[in-house]
Amino acid sequence: MKPESVTLHPLGTAPASVPELLCIFGTGDLGRSLGLRLLQSGYRVVYGSRRPDSCGPLPQGAQVMSHAAAAQTASLIFICVHREHYEFLETIAQHLEGKVLVDLSNNLKKNIYPEANAAYLQRLVPGAAVVKGLNTLSAWALQNGLLAGKQVYLCGNSAEAKQAVAEMSTKLGLTVLDRGSLSAARELEDFPLRLFPEWRLPLRVAFGLMAFFFFYLLIRDVIYAYVEQRKDISYRIMVSLANKVFPIVSLIMLSLCYLPGVIAAFLQLYRGTKYRRFPDWLDRWMLCRKQMGLVALGLAFLHAIYTFIIPIRYAVRHKLISRVVDEIDNKTTPFDFDKTEAWGTDSFYVLGILGFFLYVLLGLTSLPSVGGTLSWREFSFIQSKLGHLTLGICTAHGYIYGWNKFLRPTTYKWCTPPGYMLCLIVPSVVLVLKVLLLLPCVDRTLTRIRQGWERTQPREEKFMNKSTNL
Amino acid sequence: MKPESVTLHPLGTAPASVPELLCIFGTGDLGRSLGLRLLQSGYRVVYGSRRPDSCGPLPQGAQVMSHAAAAQTASLIFICVHREHYEFLETIAQHLEGKVLVDLSNNLKKNIYPEANAAYLQRLVPGAAVVKGLNTLSAWALQNGLLAGKQVYLCGNSAEAKQAVAEMSTKLGLTVLDRGSLSAARELEDFPLRLFPEWRLPLRVAFGLMAFFFFYLLIRDVIYAYVEQRKDISYRIMVSLANKVFPIVSLIMLSLCYLPGVIAAFLQLYRGTKYRRFPDWLDRWMLCRKQMGLVALGLAFLHAIYTFIIPIRYAVRHKLISRVVDEIDNKTTPFDFDKTEAWGTDSFYVLGILGFFLYVLLGLTSLPSVGGTLSWREFSFIQSKLGHLTLGICTAHGYIYGWNKFLRPTTYKWCTPPGYMLCLIVPSVVLVLKVLLLLPCVDRTLTRIRQGWERTQPREEKFMNKSTNL
Amino acid sequence: MKPESVTLHPLGTAPASVPELLCIFGTGDLGRSLGLRLLQSGYRVVYGSRRPDSCGPLPQGAQVMSHAAAAQTASLIFICVHREHYEFLETIAQHLEGKVLVDLSNNLKKNIYPEANAAYLQRLVPGAAVVKGLNTLSAWALQNGLLAGKQVYLCGNSAEAKQAVAEMSTKLGLTVLDRGSLSAARELEDFPLRLFPEWRLPLRVAFGLMAFFFFYLLIRDVIYAYVEQRKDISYRIMVSLANKVFPIVSLIMLSLCYLPGVIAAFLQLYRGTKYRRFPDWLDRWMLCRKQMGLVALGLAFLHAIYTFIIPIRYAVRHKLISRVVDEIDNKTTPFDFDKTEAWGTDSFYVLGILGFFLYVLLGLTSLPSVGGTLSWREFSFIQSKLGHLTLGICTAHGYIYGWNKFLRPTTYKWCTPPGYMLCLIVPSVVLVLKVLLLLPCVDRTLTRIRQGWERTQPREEKFMNKSTNL
Repeated sequence: MKPESVTLHPLGTAPASVPELLCIFGTGDLGRSLGLRLLQSGYRVVYGSRRPDSCGPLPQGAQVMSHAAAAQTASLIFICVHREHYEFLETIAQHLEGKVLVDLSNNLKKNIYPEANAAYLQRLVPGAAVVKGLNTLSAWALQNGLLAGKQVYLCGNSAEAKQAVAEMSTKLGLTVLDRGSLSAARELEDFPLRLFPEWRLPLRVAFGLMAFFFFYLLIRDVIYAYVEQRKDISYRIMVSLANKVFPIVSLIMLSLCYLPGVIAAFLQLYRGTKYRRFPDWLDRWMLCRKQMGLVALGLAFLHAIYTFIIPIRYAVRHKLISRVVDEIDNKTTPFDFDKTEAWGTDSFYVLGILGFFLYVLLGLTSLPSVGGTLSWREFSFIQSKLGHLTLGICTAHGYIYGWNKFLRPTTYKWCTPPGYMLCLIVPSVVLVLKVLLLLPCVDRTLTRIRQGWERTQPREEKFMNKSTNL
Repeated sequence: MKPESVTLHPLGTAPASVPELLCIFGTGDLGRSLGLRLLQSGYRVVYGSRRPDSCGPLPQGAQVMSHAAAAQTASLIFICVHREHYEFLETIAQHLEGKVLVDLSNNLKKNIYPEANAAYLQRLVPGAAVVKGLNTLSAWALQNGLLAGKQVYLCGNSAEAKQAVAEMSTKLGLTVLDRGSLSAARELEDFPLRLFPEWRLPLRVAFGLMAFFFFYLLIRDVIYAYVEQRKDISYRIMVSLANKVFPIVSLIMLSLCYLPGVIAAFLQLYRGTKYRRFPDWLDRWMLCRKQMGLVALGLAFLHAIYTFIIPIRYAVRHKLISRVVDEIDNKTTPFDFDKTEAWGTDSFYVLGILGFFLYVLLGLTSLPSVGGTLSWREFSFIQSKLGHLTLGICTAHGYIYGWNKFLRPTTYKWCTPPGYMLCLIVPSVVLVLKVLLLLPCVDRTLTRIRQGWERTQPREEKFMNKSTNL
Repeated sequence: MKPESVTLHPLGTAPASVPELLCIFGTGDLGRSLGLRLLQSGYRVVYGSRRPDSCGPLPQGAQVMSHAAAAQTASLIFICVHREHYEFLETIAQHLEGKVLVDLSNNLKKNIYPEANAAYLQRLVPGAAVVKGLNTLSAWALQNGLLAGKQVYLCGNSAEAKQAVAEMSTKLGLTVLDRGSLSAARELEDFPLRLFPEWRLPLRVAFGLMAFFFFYLLIRDVIYAYVEQRKDISYRIMVSLANKVFPIVSLIMLSLCYLPGVIAAFLQLYRGTKYRRFPDWLDRWMLCRKQMGLVALGLAFLHAIYTFIIPIRYAVRHKLISRVVDEIDNKTTPFDFDKTEAWGTDSFYVLGILGFFLYVLLGLTSLPSVGGTLSWREFSFIQSKLGHLTLGICTAHGYIYGWNKFLRPTTYKWCTPPGYMLCLIVPSVVLVLKVLLLLPCVDRTLTRIRQGWERTQPREEKFMNKSTNL
């Protein structure tokens, strides 16, 4: 081997040293930012414009021509024009024959047009290969180079055209996901219009529960005191009442986050197989468990802060001072230190603190960048073991709160149970069911079912099915 | 189709089965870590060293030769040597003819050399294609495989050479961004020396405001008390005073974070177009809004903790006890429960808690990994709607603090307004302007302007321009 | 150049327009999810199944055949079958000749088989090129498209086969890391079974220290009071004692996080070179510094919350009320305001708050997505400068706690020093050593050593070595 011959241009030729040329229709914010980015990634860029000589500042190094002339220079054309102005493309359709047209457009609202923008474009220029995609990129992100690792979607009828766009996107640092044919274009165009779809159910449940418990406690506490004792304690609504509603709903949301997993396990046990789909409602429920948990964490956070400010409240200070004054004036009740009370309240606080600490830990691991570094076993350890431990500790926190009040008749004003009793029902059920699932015999059956075993299978089929269940 | 023929080596040949060989000059920490990584990614590695037989432990599988011999084996050479020792490369320049040299060097300080390291290298070896890049990688990150998705920059005059380096980098799991020709090398070399450039302005503003309000409140509270009432309350500096300065500056910083957006909107309305650049100061201001918001969040966090520890302070406990003792001794003032006071202070706390909660929510969405999962509409919903809501709640928190003090003459010691009044000015202005912008007629005009409409355009041009503004 | 000729299909041919076909053995959860993902990424998919006509719901667009028939259609076959059922592959080995087999299997426990699953597979089908990899992907992540930027590992004996799998993985949005030959398969199979290996040492140290200090303080506080004063203050265990143990262990853990860096610096100074490896224990210690810091942050967080709830505890309220009652009844001690006490306790709280604030800041920058955006200089500024500042502030917090108790004889019950004194030893040592390292003469020598200078080198070698130390 003659070492000198190992250069990058082995035979003196300079292959591909002229960078590829791409065309952009439209010189708006998005067009300009995209052009800048493409130039930085080593492409040459030509703009197509209706007013090539007066179209404002363009990135340095880019050319500008009429639409028709620009179209002829490149095989890949980005359409950075509002859908309302697509008609002009029909007039130059013969120049777009065989080109790849990338439709980056978005709409301001859903369903304002009968067909997707990209489908409309394809209808106008049937000879071109339309690819819908990159429409989730903002001009802002493009200008500031915030693209690394960002996930973008493509769809289109021509695999070759998609491949060309995907390669270009990869060079820009994007991660490309192919979503199939052009019929998916509508879905892609709706992406940037999404507004927390997966948060809706959890938030609705949370607000519903909060409204219910707010009025329930308003009646039991404030209105009861007014009707029965003629005392106006409405000032308690702002803090005391809210600080009961938040933990109650938080605990229920946390248990609702673990309930579907338990139901699914019992369903699998009952059916004796894991190969039948769960009912739709259970599937939907399981998909929003993370959001339910985060709503529960938010409410627990509010509960914690509400608790920390208790001693600086006017009403609490006033009560403390009145208490001392009473103490000295009356001397009726001997003022002894009650050790059981000290142990009880301290345990109550400690369980609350530990529960909140684990809550925060669970919340941290649900951050994408933290969760992504965990192995599957670590993730399931945290979400399942630590999660149920958190639920157990928070439920114990609730039980200790009411430990000496459960049997007292005054607790049941107007024959209704207090809020903290109601909120303990769901978590207790979840915990009892979970404990049942952890019994060795149940656990063994469940593990076998999850490894593909089926109760109702004939002997021979069993083996065959098992061979496929990774 | 004969199915058996679909193997990976269709014709019995073994193309490209010998992995590519790369050369590294320098056996220091970086050279060794890079070599290890390249070997793990399936490359063969040859080290060039001045002392091939005594250069310390190298990764297993790597060869080591003299610089000249190593250079001849590969077409891509990494220069992992300090700039101070580049001269030896001139002596073997004929062996580097036609090679790609990757300059990974960094300097300890900015501007210690007249030209960039890579430009100097290119001058020493004019026959090679120098690519500057990967210099943001640390030996530590290379050794520990912390490369996935990391963004690296390249620049160089040869597109082909950059392409070769980019492909190698992609195989290492890096995301490559091309920054153009070798003239950008200096900029790349300054990257690892950056020290929070975008945080400087926000931090300076914050420290300036904190210093101003600290001295302002010191004079109004401590010195005033000393001069007028001969009381030494200097012990209040540590907590009481700080706990006034932090929320004041936090609220001002938060409003400064939303002020430039409002100013920009009014500027666009006044100009009747979005196609003229904003003044430089406004551009710079808008670029550091995120940092301003995070500084505001930090100060709000400090304010929250300072508030939580109020009741365990010695001075507060002492005051409480004295108050009770006075109460019992004097019995002059009847000690009644003031419901308005209870409602007022509780509202004050609740607004503070909700404001802080939303603050934290805003801060969480500014985490790269959280913000990256949001759609554009979700991001703007959070940063604009939730952001202004947070500002509104925090401003209301401030107003309620002073609700019954605004008209009291004792509030204006030495004819100066108290700190919380001063800090309400900017947020109030921002909120009023924002409300003006939300008026239907103003909002409609602004939306049209942002979609590319221009007030001063002739009829025909209007249409043409609109067609480009995506 | 005739512009019309620049289309994507220059000569009217349609190259590569038929997407590649991949084969999956096994129709379990993983097989189905993987197939779905591959179809979405533009591949065609054929399933191999023992029961092609009754294998449950498969993704739309996929075909299903017998194993042998499916194998013949593709060159790349994913084995999504449990290792226990690999034997059937031996029977169709002749159809797998020359194919790439991707082994995605995991085991339920470590070391249950003498050889790695992939090695076993290779032994069964010696004519195929086995690639181990992608086994860290879960069916859940595949189904929900959570793949972007995720890091996966490959290993195998055939570079060509690995290349084919790597390309496929890149198209799925994964980042691929090559881990070498098939002998690494066992390591890859153990990945998903990892359970926080890097957290074990820090957690063990933390629990050990917590147990020690818990019993130490239990004896000094509770048992001492019982034995000497016949007082049962065991109710203090839950909160007061815990709130001493947490900050003590937190401070020690934080200083243990900075101690190894200081030891390493002194070792380099003593040896006069950076080219000798550190002892193993120091290496291991340095690798878990981040985890030590995070454990310290967790304990500091608990300490903060424990402190916030102090004033709402029953025991504290009771003590406050008793104090007032005593005050009024006895009037023995004049109840004066002690300004030194006010300054002292306030400084104590302020240092604690600032320390906790910096702690949280350090914790935030250790989030992967935040740390990844920092330049090397920014990262080292935060972790070294801010870190040592945090340690300094927290140590000062500890010193002020005991400022007026160090010389009081009652502090040393049963001749033992209190807990906060013990916990100040390690941080003080670290800070003193760090200050020594910052002395100009020491700092200069260390910087030279870290740039590659060696004390014992002959003059000529010095230059040569220096040329390699980037």
